[in-house]
Amino acid sequence: MNSFGKNITLTTFGESHGPAIGGIIDGFPARFPIDLDQVQRALDRRRPGQSKLTTARREPDRVEILSGILDGLTTGTPIGFLIRNSDQHSADYEELRHTFRPSHADFTYQARYGIRDHRGGGRSSARETACRVVGGAFCAQLLAERGIQIMAYVRQVGPIEMNPDVVPTPEAIESNPVRCPDPDAARCMADMITRVKADGDTIGGIIECVVTGLPAGVGNPLFDRLNSRLANAMFTIPAVKAVEFGMGFDGCIRRGSEMVDEFIPGSDPLHPLTLTNNSGGIQGGISNGMPVILRIGFKPVATLLRPVRTMTDSAAPTTLTARGRHDPCVLPRAVPVVEAMAALTIADLIC
Amino acid sequence: MNSFGKNITLTTFGESHGPAIGGIIDGFPARFPIDLDQVQRALDRRRPGQSKLTTARREPDRVEILSGILDGLTTGTPIGFLIRNSDQHSADYEELRHTFRPSHADFTYQARYGIRDHRGGGRSSARETACRVVGGAFCAQLLAERGIQIMAYVRQVGPIEMNPDVVPTPEAIESNPVRCPDPDAARCMADMITRVKADGDTIGGIIECVVTGLPAGVGNPLFDRLNSRLANAMFTIPAVKAVEFGMGFDGCIRRGSEMVDEFIPGSDPLHPLTLTNNSGGIQGGISNGMPVILRIGFKPVATLLRPVRTMTDSAAPTTLTARGRHDPCVLPRAVPVVEAMAALTIADLIC
Amino acid sequence: MNSFGKNITLTTFGESHGPAIGGIIDGFPARFPIDLDQVQRALDRRRPGQSKLTTARREPDRVEILSGILDGLTTGTPIGFLIRNSDQHSADYEELRHTFRPSHADFTYQARYGIRDHRGGGRSSARETACRVVGGAFCAQLLAERGIQIMAYVRQVGPIEMNPDVVPTPEAIESNPVRCPDPDAARCMADMITRVKADGDTIGGIIECVVTGLPAGVGNPLFDRLNSRLANAMFTIPAVKAVEFGMGFDGCIRRGSEMVDEFIPGSDPLHPLTLTNNSGGIQGGISNGMPVILRIGFKPVATLLRPVRTMTDSAAPTTLTARGRHDPCVLPRAVPVVEAMAALTIADLIC
Amino acid sequence: MNSFGKNITLTTFGESHGPAIGGIIDGFPARFPIDLDQVQRALDRRRPGQSKLTTARREPDRVEILSGILDGLTTGTPIGFLIRNSDQHSADYEELRHTFRPSHADFTYQARYGIRDHRGGGRSSARETACRVVGGAFCAQLLAERGIQIMAYVRQVGPIEMNPDVVPTPEAIESNPVRCPDPDAARCMADMITRVKADGDTIGGIIECVVTGLPAGVGNPLFDRLNSRLANAMFTIPAVKAVEFGMGFDGCIRRGSEMVDEFIPGSDPLHPLTLTNNSGGIQGGISNGMPVILRIGFKPVATLLRPVRTMTDSAAPTTLTARGRHDPCVLPRAVPVVEAMAALTIADLIC
Repeated sequence: MNSFGKNITLTTFGESHGPAIGGIIDGFPARFPIDLDQVQRALDRRRPGQSKLTTARREPDRVEILSGILDGLTTGTPIGFLIRNSDQHSADYEELRHTFRPSHADFTYQARYGIRDHRGGGRSSARETACRVVGGAFCAQLLAERGIQIMAYVRQVGPIEMNPDVVPTPEAIESNPVRCPDPDAARCMADMITRVKADGDTIGGIIECVVTGLPAGVGNPLFDRLNSRLANAMFTIPAVKAVEFGMGFDGCIRRGSEMVDEFIPGSDPLHPLTLTNNSGGIQGGISNGMPVILRIGFKPVATLLRPVRTMTDSAAPTTLTARGRHDPCVLPRAVPVVEAMAALTIADLIC
Repeated sequence: MNSFGKNITLTTFGESHGPAIGGIIDGFPARFPIDLDQVQRALDRRRPGQSKLTTARREPDRVEILSGILDGLTTGTPIGFLIRNSDQHSADYEELRHTFRPSHADFTYQARYGIRDHRGGGRSSARETACRVVGGAFCAQLLAERGIQIMAYVRQVGPIEMNPDVVPTPEAIESNPVRCPDPDAARCMADMITRVKADGDTIGGIIECVVTGLPAGVGNPLFDRLNSRLANAMFTIPAVKAVEFGMGFDGCIRRGSEMVDEFIPGSDPLHPLTLTNNSGGIQGGISNGMPVILRIGFKPVATLLRPVRTMTDSAAPTTLTARGRHDPCVLPRAVPVVEAMAALTIADLIC
Repeated sequence: MNSFGKNITLTTFGESHGPAIGGIIDGFPARFPIDLDQVQRALDRRRPGQSKLTTARREPDRVEILSGILDGLTTGTPIGFLIRNSDQHSADYEELRHTFRPSHADFTYQARYGIRDHRGGGRSSARETACRVVGGAFCAQLLAERGIQIMAYVRQVGPIEMNPDVVPTPEAIESNPVRCPDPDAARCMADMITRVKADGDTIGGIIECVVTGLPAGVGNPLFDRLNSRLANAMFTIPAVKAVEFGMGFDGCIRRGSEMVDEFIPGSDPLHPLTLTNNSGGIQGGISNGMPVILRIGFKPVATLLRPVRTMTDSAAPTTLTARGRHDPCVLPRAVPVVEAMAALTIADLIC
Repeated sequence: MNSFGKNITLTTFGESHGPAIGGIIDGFPARFPIDLDQVQRALDRRRPGQSKLTTARREPDRVEILSGILDGLTTGTPIGFLIRNSDQHSADYEELRHTFRPSHADFTYQARYGIRDHRGGGRSSARETACRVVGGAFCAQLLAERGIQIMAYVRQVGPIEMNPDVVPTPEAIESNPVRCPDPDAARCMADMITRVKADGDTIGGIIECVVTGLPAGVGNPLFDRLNSRLANAMFTIPAVKAVEFGMGFDGCIRRGSEMVDEFIPGSDPLHPLTLTNNSGGIQGGISNGMPVILRIGFKPVATLLRPVRTMTDSAAPTTLTARGRHDPCVLPRAVPVVEAMAALTIADLIC
């Protein structure tokens, strides 16, 4: 349903065209000095209208905290929050009342519930991910205190891949609107997105996420693995179609002798290193102390500013040309969402 | 922990070197005429010692049902079952008491629990998946009654990929020990596995899973999506490193205009078709009535019959050469496990 | 934590002295025509300041729905709601910053979290139950559509018990500020509460709850019983100290021959009656089609307008005399809370 | 369904007339030195045929551990266990195939599932509680290591109440077959049970449970309270009809000034005492460091060795006279079950 996590949970509500979206963070530890500016900054990174590469919609997306914090400290009680909606052009969506957008969730919501909010995608709108960014920003602060850092960035847009030798840093990632730490690739990606947008088209790509500082021993062996939990989290983000860890699919078609991560013992038997990190920091569902690395594939958004064949809710064939203000490429704005889902997942496993 | 599912749950227990493994299926509907021979047959497909391509270990793997069935009908009460262990060569594992096998879960279990059963991988042994096959075989019968079929097969072993134009059938899949529906590719794959085994090496690959007959409207919009649930399920299988749906990573680096699945309206507004199925039958986390297609990457097993550098539990460097009887390629035996996890997931969402 | 239910869940947040309390109802069926006036009316029955028998605090307690409803119909997506706080006299609570009120949750919250909101009891304030009344009012409408009615009333205040032969009706219950369907007893109870209030004291009592129209077969046999779920729900209401079903404790000290509920077969084998209903409509954790009857004991509120011995948070002995506006008897306002918890529990089991 | 707990879970299976009953304990901490003899001893206290006051059925009830323990230490992996059934007189139950026993779960199971195992009550048989005793005995050892002791005893049988001034000790409780720490009352209770048995009748009563050594701060404020969790646990035991804490119903009909538990500050601000313990060690759902005290009412068993009016599964009126070997009073054997449920609940909240 609409809750994520077991120990620290995030429950969200809200459609893009109602008065507000929001959520409840439950199980967050007491007496933690939370920095609400940092929460807002995370939200700003997801906000529409940041650059020419994203949608022209403008929503200030200010988070209002309603409970659970006293004198700057969490109290252990649930943290309720709101983000008010604004800049809604509901009229833009009138023609979608009886027409399903292809490759969107319009038809599947109708099949699931027999009803749907046709305005802005209703609950399936990526706007809902703003609530996840709030929850994730709380959890990221908790993890940072324990020395765990989560960093995501755009690794590939369409055919343009970043140089894998570039070492990503938060500064390099934020230095360009694409959120790719390789400045040369970032420029090409920006050009590509601009060109695609001019064509009324969209483009997908791949985000990479790296978790450092995670101690060995996080995750559970069977059904509650670190990798299964992270993959589950990533696949709950709209448009995600693929997730892989470490060497991923490429490593799966190799021989064992090429893929084995041999140990380099150190002074501490519980914190060894491995010569390679083909398994992406996870073995048997549990972290091994090396960086956790995963890649998440986002399909191109299906909202095209050109005619597509589709059908009405009475099964009549029709043609639809999207209007309104859409992202030609969701990846730059999806980076903080990936980080949020990773933070929620890991905090839930650790706390 | 060790339970899977919400409405129909499977909880499992057991190590490969104890008296038995087993589990409890809870929430299974009452008055369902269960075919226990079919359950045993599913287990036989996972059993070691089926062919020269798999481990030489021989375990009969007979399932014993202890409760929940009366006169051939389920009663709605929990179904307890056992599979006794046999053919254990515990002595084979004595040298692993203080040595971690690299790229296995030995070290991570030690880090997680401060203790581990060194014999046969303990709980991390893939032997545990036999219990999932039992649970999955119950669920598959439930789904079959509703017209839903789950079929998995080996699509790629190392660099050898099957012809994507071959239409897979259960008969074609079972006609060769690799469980690849393309007979030519199957032959090459078998040769490859034999060669790899002769080298004391192992090899990974990709399994494809197709779910047909699933009606539109299955899955939930936010955190309990059909794709997130299926991905979570697949990543709980040992050695899985990557999962993708529909066009997967390849589709993620394309343009929206190439990837959109346009509707072909039919007579029934709730059962349309789409011209393409790039999204693999799922939109917004909910099935759209088209076949659900996913691919699962299995890394090569890390147990090599050649020396690898590793360390002891007191962090001393050492070298290990695996002995014993291991699978050079887990994919043929993983096919029924993939089907089981898909069946457990979908039955849980539907029932 | 702060979520109730499995299929239909209510998650709440908020302290009495923050900007608002609120919650999220998740899993509520789609396309249900919800009557929001009825929700507000339920809230009005719990509202402070209804009569001279309750606290003089005045809070309008208007519920604002933020999501999940479109054109008067639920959409199946989560229903977010808010109730703004007002009429807060935070200064009243300043002396409680370092002093624990005896028999309140002040000390136990401090022990649990190492921090507490001293203003108005923070999260332990009964104000939080307003959110449950909202959730319960949604569920009660769902149940009413299926012919299931939940009715609670005050059965005993201090030593004054109602005449057990009076047949309770919603009208009789609402005809007096005590919410006791026996008008003679209601008058005595009102006098008693007035007298107790004049003494600066408080008084407890017993609420009875009757569920009619529940079909046989609701509940689960083992750990998720209709009675265990209802008891759990009632014990989550502040001040509840005892719960019993049917003949309760009195029936437990009798012989089996006195207590057996013999069947009176009817035309429908699945809807028999029983001659007596000593078991309160539940056998083996599952409803038998007879009315479900339970009684809930509320301790007298510990807030006394007279000095009590207590201690500070540095363990110094001190004396405290409550000020402010408190309920001398919580039972009249607890009646809608009992109904709400019963509705949430049963809707969760049925839907 | 059939799982209890969130962090440490017990899942059980099995009917009294199948080959075995059993369960899985999951989430139990690793490296705990478990004493299996103590587990068996707990089971022996619940075993039928202990004394003339209980059923004459004889079942050895030996627990077999199948997994999760290595060299006497728990490994953190799930603990599977079995108790084989024996001494089954299935033929005794043949006349129950089509007849519902009144005040038993026969009819309600049929209504719930459309099918039931008529032999020995199937899943509704109190035999299932043997599995809870196993789980509870594991948890009790964990709690004992932390200084937490759980002690239950028979406080009342029919009208005979023990002297409340007797201080119960484990030795006094086990010194008589009734498990009442007051030897005089125990003798009267035994006489009463013998007399009731001779009449072909049964009798109910009240068990008291005391938890000592529990630190302040255990439990959660809202829906996961120590009292709601304990009450829920007790109401899952067959035949339980009433639960109360501290002064219970009697305290609910008093004035606040009589019931308030004033603090006696000690040297440690987090471990104060209270002058009285009317609230039974719990305030706002959280333990306050005083002993937790609750009373559980068990209805008399409905199996009478005298004719009762009932009906068949085709709604025909009939008369039934129970045969076979039944407990005239379940309380002596229910004492270890109450302790087990308390141990499971508290271990789950603490660990």
